[in-house]
Amino acid sequence: MSARNKKVRDDCVAAREVLDRIGDSWSALTVGTLARGPQRFTELQRSIDGVSQRMLTLTLRGLERDGLATRTVFPTVPPSVQYALTPLGRTLLDPVRGLAEWATKHREQIQSARDRFDGASARLSS
Amino acid sequence: MSARNKKVRDDCVAAREVLDRIGDSWSALTVGTLARGPQRFTELQRSIDGVSQRMLTLTLRGLERDGLATRTVFPTVPPSVQYALTPLGRTLLDPVRGLAEWATKHREQIQSARDRFDGASARLSS
Repeated sequence: MSARNKKVRDDCVAAREVLDRIGDSWSALTVGTLARGPQRFTELQRSIDGVSQRMLTLTLRGLERDGLATRTVFPTVPPSVQYALTPLGRTLLDPVRGLAEWATKHREQIQSARDRFDGASARLSS
Repeated sequence: MSARNKKVRDDCVAAREVLDRIGDSWSALTVGTLARGPQRFTELQRSIDGVSQRMLTLTLRGLERDGLATRTVFPTVPPSVQYALTPLGRTLLDPVRGLAEWATKHREQIQSARDRFDGASARLSS
């Protein structure tokens, strides 16, 4: 294997690791939402369409575990909990935005390709 | 919601869609491997560490359905099948590489964060 191919392959393995981490897509969406600034759990839940309380809890714990977000408890009554991106988490914004822009730009093309593929499959099986 | 926040949110939803598509990570790895040029199934399987025949078949079909890869059958005996990125698939290389570079650069930092988090959790529960 050439050095260039090895480099490409190592990059791919690394991409797989990070995609396994943030690829559940709730994580990417949560990171994107925290880009606006620190927020409470309920604010996040309102902003992220369709996320359940349980899924958001798991997602935030995953981000905290990976060092991408912090969880700060303020001693109010009742205690309020605020989530924020860490400096490491903020470095993830650029690549996530890169994908988001790609998705926005090519969404219709992908949908057309799917419709064509599904149409061809239906014709083959009829 | 401000126009800027709405933009951020729409981008996030689009990112979620693309991550649901390529976020299984075998897809990203397959796209990355096809960056070297058209390849046969067996070549791809050799290059992608740990992928099963079934998983690679499903992944390639998903990429074909989304218009990101082509499948060409050559009338040899036995027939040989070659996979290649489409022009649309090639546009995905930059954002995927962006993530891969992020992952390569921050892999150790994430691992350290995980070790700290798991250590702290273990201390809390003992």
